[in-house]
Amino acid sequence: MERTKEMTVIEKDWGKFVSLPISDKLKYFSKNSRIYDCLFAQQFDREILEYLFRISNTLRRITKTKEGMNFASSLLDHKRAILYFVQPSTRTFLSFLNACHILGIKTSEIRDTSISSEYKGESPEDSIRTFSSYVDLIIMRHPTPNFVEKSAWLMNRTKRPVPVINAGSSKDQHPTQALLDIYTLYRSFNGEIDGKTIAMVGDLKRGRTVRSLSYLMKNYKNMKLIYISPKEFAMEKDIIDFLKKNNISYYETTDFEEGIKEADAIYMTRIQDEHDKNGESKKVDYSGYCFKEKHLKIIKKDAIIMHPLPRRDEIDVKVDDDPRAMYWRQERNGMWVRAALMAYIFNVDSKIHIENNP
Amino acid sequence: MERTKEMTVIEKDWGKFVSLPISDKLKYFSKNSRIYDCLFAQQFDREILEYLFRISNTLRRITKTKEGMNFASSLLDHKRAILYFVQPSTRTFLSFLNACHILGIKTSEIRDTSISSEYKGESPEDSIRTFSSYVDLIIMRHPTPNFVEKSAWLMNRTKRPVPVINAGSSKDQHPTQALLDIYTLYRSFNGEIDGKTIAMVGDLKRGRTVRSLSYLMKNYKNMKLIYISPKEFAMEKDIIDFLKKNNISYYETTDFEEGIKEADAIYMTRIQDEHDKNGESKKVDYSGYCFKEKHLKIIKKDAIIMHPLPRRDEIDVKVDDDPRAMYWRQERNGMWVRAALMAYIFNVDSKIHIENNP
Amino acid sequence: MERTKEMTVIEKDWGKFVSLPISDKLKYFSKNSRIYDCLFAQQFDREILEYLFRISNTLRRITKTKEGMNFASSLLDHKRAILYFVQPSTRTFLSFLNACHILGIKTSEIRDTSISSEYKGESPEDSIRTFSSYVDLIIMRHPTPNFVEKSAWLMNRTKRPVPVINAGSSKDQHPTQALLDIYTLYRSFNGEIDGKTIAMVGDLKRGRTVRSLSYLMKNYKNMKLIYISPKEFAMEKDIIDFLKKNNISYYETTDFEEGIKEADAIYMTRIQDEHDKNGESKKVDYSGYCFKEKHLKIIKKDAIIMHPLPRRDEIDVKVDDDPRAMYWRQERNGMWVRAALMAYIFNVDSKIHIENNP
Repeated sequence: MERTKEMTVIEKDWGKFVSLPISDKLKYFSKNSRIYDCLFAQQFDREILEYLFRISNTLRRITKTKEGMNFASSLLDHKRAILYFVQPSTRTFLSFLNACHILGIKTSEIRDTSISSEYKGESPEDSIRTFSSYVDLIIMRHPTPNFVEKSAWLMNRTKRPVPVINAGSSKDQHPTQALLDIYTLYRSFNGEIDGKTIAMVGDLKRGRTVRSLSYLMKNYKNMKLIYISPKEFAMEKDIIDFLKKNNISYYETTDFEEGIKEADAIYMTRIQDEHDKNGESKKVDYSGYCFKEKHLKIIKKDAIIMHPLPRRDEIDVKVDDDPRAMYWRQERNGMWVRAALMAYIFNVDSKIHIENNP
Repeated sequence: MERTKEMTVIEKDWGKFVSLPISDKLKYFSKNSRIYDCLFAQQFDREILEYLFRISNTLRRITKTKEGMNFASSLLDHKRAILYFVQPSTRTFLSFLNACHILGIKTSEIRDTSISSEYKGESPEDSIRTFSSYVDLIIMRHPTPNFVEKSAWLMNRTKRPVPVINAGSSKDQHPTQALLDIYTLYRSFNGEIDGKTIAMVGDLKRGRTVRSLSYLMKNYKNMKLIYISPKEFAMEKDIIDFLKKNNISYYETTDFEEGIKEADAIYMTRIQDEHDKNGESKKVDYSGYCFKEKHLKIIKKDAIIMHPLPRRDEIDVKVDDDPRAMYWRQERNGMWVRAALMAYIFNVDSKIHIENNP
Repeated sequence: MERTKEMTVIEKDWGKFVSLPISDKLKYFSKNSRIYDCLFAQQFDREILEYLFRISNTLRRITKTKEGMNFASSLLDHKRAILYFVQPSTRTFLSFLNACHILGIKTSEIRDTSISSEYKGESPEDSIRTFSSYVDLIIMRHPTPNFVEKSAWLMNRTKRPVPVINAGSSKDQHPTQALLDIYTLYRSFNGEIDGKTIAMVGDLKRGRTVRSLSYLMKNYKNMKLIYISPKEFAMEKDIIDFLKKNNISYYETTDFEEGIKEADAIYMTRIQDEHDKNGESKKVDYSGYCFKEKHLKIIKKDAIIMHPLPRRDEIDVKVDDDPRAMYWRQERNGMWVRAALMAYIFNVDSKIHIENNP
């Protein structure tokens, strides 16, 4: 409602609205000083990040018993969500679906747009509004740039808005992936991320996750970043400029073994060849940017190895058994932090804390 | 059981049964003087219509709180339904699915018949019987004429019948669409439909919804219908004959602006070109049958604008913000009235009324 | 944990493990002297079979009331399962899904592998591990020989194992189909299977169900098997050898009417032409191996007619109305026995018995 009052000419015109800097948009996607639509990694500051992580920790702890799980799934058992996934994404889809199950949210799925009334000539905006008619939350993955944001913007202009969570929008934003990456650092380092050294390895140029992770490092103190990549896939200039501006320490190298030695966290990524225009990935020698069993000996004893998955051969399966291999837990962390986010959006986060942390 | 006793030679022979007039079939799809299988719009008389609308109103009112939603979803949490949608229909599918969620009914989905054991040569009748084995209710959309009816007929001849709800059968019947259209009139006019003027616009010749709506007008008194369409898409003679026989006032015009002026409800429809044989729709000038922003000025101040959706450009998106634009609420009404119908079929409707209308 | 201690070199090497005889593998898929992963029909001895059947009987009895169904669906409402069905199978899929619903298990589905992150080059093993991250149980159907077993083996080597149930693996194993077949005998004969005569009819050579059923007959005393088939589809030598070794009485015939006369159960099967290499099925005259209405007169008065379904014309639809036609109930039995199996795997079977059999 405060939004409605403040609604200006710009806010009513999508073409103008979308061109605003993200910082100017944030209040449009908030309600009662809380994130209402979760669209950008930039919506998370340190306070909200750590609050969500504490909810995640509590949720995963209490749900180990039947009683605790029954408590969790009573929190939002009066809510219904739709998972609208136009792009294939088994991993993110299952993570969100099961996060809904944990909280008792009932779910509908649209995963194959060919089974859709869109064939009758409906606009994508009308489809979204239709889906929203039946539910209380939209979780959306969409290949069209800014379409998730536009849906949230559109919803907020209707008489029956429902929150929208971005589950991956084109190449640009995938805020809950950023959440789970930081949560994995938080959890692995017992809440002490400040001062750590994070190596990011691989296709840094086109990897959405390493870009978001770099960005969110500004929330922490004395971080040191090491970018390890073939020169063709070096981190883009906009992020480097961002680090400089925010005085975040970093260095770049093409030497994998040299780079991973001193890291507290090694974030591996696969080559993003789905963004190739002319098969340029094949010309790059990626073999030196794979974590093999032998590398377990040269990294720190308490380092952690991360990967957003799926992997190809960037990490040898033999590494999986090492206690420092964190990527499977990282994946599972996504479910917990997404559940925490939804509990927060629907304002039942305090129930989780009050009833379970005496 | 009464059905079994009365089962005659005709009722045992599908070929003979299907040729009976609908009025003769109704008792076969009833149980204890209630609708058991919901197949035809003709099953609804005014009494049952208004009863279902009162349940719908109560359901939507009480489910605004967590307690009320928990009450609603405890009503049928011991039941399981299958949504068997051979034809694509996101809208009707989601509406039914979420209506099930509201009542606590657990759901299975068959939406893509290629993922089916039918490939092993099973008959469609055997498939239906298989699906019914696991559930308490079948909600079916099927492109084959009379197939939904045949499924209900078949089920009723087995030892373990389950009710069947028609969610759209070929070109002929889509009874719950008719329900939601009338419910929208009922709700918008505070229960006073008698005496209203309803304009129906567009492809009246091939539109299933305007035909059903016309038919159901016989339940109300002093109705006036205005059919507005290009002459190629005028309402079919069988409906005109029906109106004459039932003394329902109507007139036909090709003049959109003239026609909508005096209407209390304007029911817009899109061109049904999926029924084209030789692209004949392209030859028709439909541009004069679109509701534009300027028309808001010429219609009655308390008129409502309806549309079964999806729309193309029959209604300009600028019309959406007008309080008289009722189509988005009409869509949502479908979920409530379908929930009411299922509550009624499973005989828990009295619980909704007794516990919530003191 | 006992498994971990005993883990030998062989158990760590899939290539070696898979070659072990099934009897040597069983302990690897057990936990606390219970079946943990359900992979092979050979995991069921008479004691466990009859125990599961008693659970099934209790479950189906108590769930006839709302209270009983609510009790059942509270048993595992803190658990989540994924149904990973790479091969189409509507019947088995729905049976498992609704068995989950009966116990309150929340479900995720992967039915179409094209909507999968596998397109990004992930290994099938990594996909399984990903799916397992979010759930407590994997129910899997897979066309690759031994892949279901490999998944269970792999899971048991991780820090967060979840049980795996085989819902049909390639041509070889489909243990819950065997369960429901025996349960149908058990239920139809009031628990007295010993001494019965079972006729199996049709494509015995390539039918997975008749092979499993034959194998499990060793759990019962004084059984007599009659194999009725065209000579091209006679039962394979390995099963015949097994019967001889276990002193199970049998005879083979090509004469359908002769064979079914003395049977207590007649297990019909369809021609398995999906296994044809050169359309060889078309050369076989199958017409004499179809159960027609006239055969109802020549079989025993209390015989039962079974079929794993789907059927083509092996059983005339006119036979469906005969009380001895058991195949529709057989299909439904699958849901109950699968629910019983899951209750057993999650150790809530005693709750079903204690609270419901005073």
